[in-house]
Amino acid sequence: MIDATHDPKLTSWVASANGHRDFPIQNLPFGLFSPANEVPRTGVAIGNEIIELQTLVAAGLRQDSVTLDQVLATPALRKSLRQQMSQLLRDPRHADSAEPYLHSATDCTLHLPTHIGDYSDFYAGIHHAVTVGKLFRPDNPLLPNYKHVPIGYHGRASSIRPTDATVIRPKGQTKAPDVEAPSFGPSKRLDFELELGVWIGQGNDLGTPVDIGDAAHHIAGYCLLNDWSARDFQAWEYQPLGPFLAKNFMTTISPWIITPEAMAPFRQAQQPRPEGDPKPLPYLWDEADQATGALGLKLDVLIQTEAMRAQNLPPYTLSQSEARHMYWTPAQLVTHHTSNGCNLQTGDLLGTGTISGPTPDSAGSLLELSEGGKKPVILPSNESRTFLEDHDELILRARAEADGFVSIGFGDCRGHIAPAR
Amino acid sequence: MIDATHDPKLTSWVASANGHRDFPIQNLPFGLFSPANEVPRTGVAIGNEIIELQTLVAAGLRQDSVTLDQVLATPALRKSLRQQMSQLLRDPRHADSAEPYLHSATDCTLHLPTHIGDYSDFYAGIHHAVTVGKLFRPDNPLLPNYKHVPIGYHGRASSIRPTDATVIRPKGQTKAPDVEAPSFGPSKRLDFELELGVWIGQGNDLGTPVDIGDAAHHIAGYCLLNDWSARDFQAWEYQPLGPFLAKNFMTTISPWIITPEAMAPFRQAQQPRPEGDPKPLPYLWDEADQATGALGLKLDVLIQTEAMRAQNLPPYTLSQSEARHMYWTPAQLVTHHTSNGCNLQTGDLLGTGTISGPTPDSAGSLLELSEGGKKPVILPSNESRTFLEDHDELILRARAEADGFVSIGFGDCRGHIAPAR
Repeated sequence: MIDATHDPKLTSWVASANGHRDFPIQNLPFGLFSPANEVPRTGVAIGNEIIELQTLVAAGLRQDSVTLDQVLATPALRKSLRQQMSQLLRDPRHADSAEPYLHSATDCTLHLPTHIGDYSDFYAGIHHAVTVGKLFRPDNPLLPNYKHVPIGYHGRASSIRPTDATVIRPKGQTKAPDVEAPSFGPSKRLDFELELGVWIGQGNDLGTPVDIGDAAHHIAGYCLLNDWSARDFQAWEYQPLGPFLAKNFMTTISPWIITPEAMAPFRQAQQPRPEGDPKPLPYLWDEADQATGALGLKLDVLIQTEAMRAQNLPPYTLSQSEARHMYWTPAQLVTHHTSNGCNLQTGDLLGTGTISGPTPDSAGSLLELSEGGKKPVILPSNESRTFLEDHDELILRARAEADGFVSIGFGDCRGHIAPAR
Repeated sequence: MIDATHDPKLTSWVASANGHRDFPIQNLPFGLFSPANEVPRTGVAIGNEIIELQTLVAAGLRQDSVTLDQVLATPALRKSLRQQMSQLLRDPRHADSAEPYLHSATDCTLHLPTHIGDYSDFYAGIHHAVTVGKLFRPDNPLLPNYKHVPIGYHGRASSIRPTDATVIRPKGQTKAPDVEAPSFGPSKRLDFELELGVWIGQGNDLGTPVDIGDAAHHIAGYCLLNDWSARDFQAWEYQPLGPFLAKNFMTTISPWIITPEAMAPFRQAQQPRPEGDPKPLPYLWDEADQATGALGLKLDVLIQTEAMRAQNLPPYTLSQSEARHMYWTPAQLVTHHTSNGCNLQTGDLLGTGTISGPTPDSAGSLLELSEGGKKPVILPSNESRTFLEDHDELILRARAEADGFVSIGFGDCRGHIAPAR
């Protein structure tokens, strides 16, 4: 619902918020952070600062302290806190009482916002599915189930890390097609995957599916997600049970929870299915979800190599995509996941799958950008990349835009590749 | 290490323990239980009773109380508690002080022993892989990676339940080969899978693989695991990313943690690989693990239908297998899982995959027993089964046997099928 918190004329007494790329006063995402050497606490990103949720109590806007897990689990609480934070941050009379609760973001450490019980990763980017399908199965790129089933699989929760955590190049088994036996060593085809993450708010009981009309109410927010992938391991291990060690060495997320409320102005209709595509089964179909269930989000992938840093070259945009290239809405992912009675829990994370666009320069992975390693990408430093090299830094960014509204971002989802140990 | 706790002459003053199928004094598994209407506490199964760990403090054998998570995480603590519990339960002088801590198992509720952070399921039963592979891929039953890679995938932690939790028949998408479009409804091919579970004790840090020579020290115990499977969903959804909704509606485990110490007399050499099979890569190979890393365990699958209960027919043995049919040892599963730096955490659970024997009557699933649904299994009630029907009860049991030692069991892993909602 669009309300006063989305008013484009709103400004904050936190000066860095006004015109901020990611965190103007119209965003107000929740997260868990530590000021230097202090214990973790719940905060809201505002410009270049982070303000503690506790400031609402100090300002007399709330009676009670709440935890971030309560915020996640309780849509009404999440909405009211965002409203109150908007009030506090727009009204300069609160600046004095808030001052002890305001921290420069550069002095803070960001944590995962909650304990992630289960992490499931989908495959909702159809252009990715087709392009990668061609590489793995030239004669059969898009399997017959794709347009009927929101394909997904379980990922590893323990190795999810917030932005800026170092990505150690993994070792693993590979077998080139032209050799007899597999070998073990550092991945030679380390890749990123541009994804969105969907935070589960209210869970559902085991045995009780979430109706498609109700699914959006179970979503507490969004983040960026980089599903780092060792393509050489993946090709050798993934049949018949799917990717495992090719993925589970690390997943990086942007740790701010961008709420459905902040995203309200940027909802849009799901792209119509191309002529001839099947209509989803009724359990996955809701007119309201089709009308407003997609996200208007531009997605950027940037790289900065060691040589680029040495030459003071800024990060280079490898690719630009958009969330509208998802073949399924977030609500459809939630409903499909629970359709067999599987229970989602507060703090669970869903990945959308790689969101590639239809053109070569909008691909969400190097596997696609380099056409399976055959066509190197040339960087401004005159280096080339087919896959990631040690000391490369990879950054995902998201930008929600809509006419008449102030744009918001998600904060960076960044990883730095360290050599194999 | 074999020690006095394994002495076959040991008896307990808890009379029901002596000659008990599962829980003689030589076993002493740890678990989490609630006496009627009371809060959960850590206990040890002994015969038909459960004794609280706290009794060791009351008896003066320990100074401090410990949690089950501490027991899981700390091999030395686990070993010393088992020694102390053996002392207490063999010496009748402790009977009086222990009495308030002793509960009849039939009056207690068993819980999952710990929070399961991540659950990974392997595919280590080679006879299962070959037989099922033939059904899904007649021309290509065992994929080229199988004998090199301990194939595994991530499962769903949130839907793991202890024995006796009701299994609601899941709904989902299926598509028969002879129809145009998929449909949604209750599974018509609901199956069980006979597996062992491996509890992770000490974890490893992200980026730090567990060496094969050290892997056994990261295992805190074993359980039975039934990986309930909707074969009709699985056939339609599993490519290219593996099983998802076909499995994640429920997994049942036997909730007693059978310790490596209790299993010490039942370790055995890994079955030699058949002539012509490749030797595993060095990171998976350890002579000591090959010599003693396999488990001597007989595994039974029993079924009791509603009609059988009405006719007072006891559960019928559908299948008998053995843990030695695993192509990989538990240590190899742990080492492979961490070989890329993936971090295992205390309380994580690994499934072995379905442990079928080489003969038709030793298969660990109905998919195999009924040859893909083509050959019904006839029950003593003159009913037949290709897959599970509503109100069927399915029971997994394990029995460790070795010459000169008292046999131990794992306790039942049981599930009752309820109709789809």
